[in-house]
Amino acid sequence: MKGSGVFITFEGIDGSGKSTQARMLAETLRATGKDVVLTREPGGSVGAEQIRGLVLEGDPDRWSAETEILLFTAARRDHLEKTIQPALDAGKIVVSDRFADSTRLYQGITRGDLRGVVDTLHGLMIGREPDITFIIDMDPATGLARALSRQTSEERFEDFGEELQKKMRVGFLAIAKEFSDRCLVVDGNRNADVVAAEVAELALERLA
Amino acid sequence: MKGSGVFITFEGIDGSGKSTQARMLAETLRATGKDVVLTREPGGSVGAEQIRGLVLEGDPDRWSAETEILLFTAARRDHLEKTIQPALDAGKIVVSDRFADSTRLYQGITRGDLRGVVDTLHGLMIGREPDITFIIDMDPATGLARALSRQTSEERFEDFGEELQKKMRVGFLAIAKEFSDRCLVVDGNRNADVVAAEVAELALERLA
Repeated sequence: MKGSGVFITFEGIDGSGKSTQARMLAETLRATGKDVVLTREPGGSVGAEQIRGLVLEGDPDRWSAETEILLFTAARRDHLEKTIQPALDAGKIVVSDRFADSTRLYQGITRGDLRGVVDTLHGLMIGREPDITFIIDMDPATGLARALSRQTSEERFEDFGEELQKKMRVGFLAIAKEFSDRCLVVDGNRNADVVAAEVAELALERLA
Repeated sequence: MKGSGVFITFEGIDGSGKSTQARMLAETLRATGKDVVLTREPGGSVGAEQIRGLVLEGDPDRWSAETEILLFTAARRDHLEKTIQPALDAGKIVVSDRFADSTRLYQGITRGDLRGVVDTLHGLMIGREPDITFIIDMDPATGLARALSRQTSEERFEDFGEELQKKMRVGFLAIAKEFSDRCLVVDGNRNADVVAAEVAELALERLA
């Protein structure tokens, strides 16, 4: 079930501007008359948002990496069933701030031994990959400063130091290589409008 | 990690008396001086009980079978990590009212095509099987009448008719055959004390 729509995701380190870019691309595509669903992970559907709450609230160590992967996969399955797939089936463009690459990346860095588990679970329960993934590449120190300036207690993903930001950047570039058919790396170290213009140009090229 | 303890589970159709039997066996074993942890699924740990709440509350159809399997597996993983495995490592006896066989059974009946997914997930994320499983066999009509007399809004598992009870009985007997090394079928159509005496005798034989 690929659907006739197009599935676009944004990935990047904390503070890379991926959420801003996802929103800006959705607006640009809507301005050209396209029907766009803007969504995010973890979350993106009623059930997935509840699972997100369960994972992100409370003591960060209360779930093991294994349980967390299962919960994120459950949330992703719900997000796919309730939000993404129906929109794709209706021919819409789905723009998601994060998707499975975030799980691959995050687990790869914190528990590299679980990458195989992540992949098996993805193949078994999700299957779908994005058609286009924008990886917003960003200097780790700049990204960290930006992330910290807007940190909220819920955003565990942002709760990292610069060393981890560096590892995440390397990890995302490795994912871009591993899935080079769908991944486009865009330099995020520029004015958001300049980045958005490049993203829009690349997206419209691929959509054409 | 099998641990030096013993892992005993109770399974059976709704109203079979499995919860009563699990409690009675725990009491009998404690009376012989054994250290026993009595637990249940879905739930059995702080996190797993929260996942249980998420699955069982609200509209019964709000999760797909696939998402539900992922959530139950996440709950089971947490239950295993936080409650079962630590007790087994400490040499205790763990008695659980339901475990993975309930998922195999339930999904086998409602979505037989997902049995392979259930088994793959179990092998990947749980691994551990009980040492002894008591399957409390019960006449489907009697079980249903008993289950309905104490039905609560949360207990979706009990929300079945007699036809489904019959299918579940057949399913549990098939599981007993499939896992004949650990499964013991006990006739539950008798006074609870009589059933408990047989269960205790069988358990003590195996523990010796």
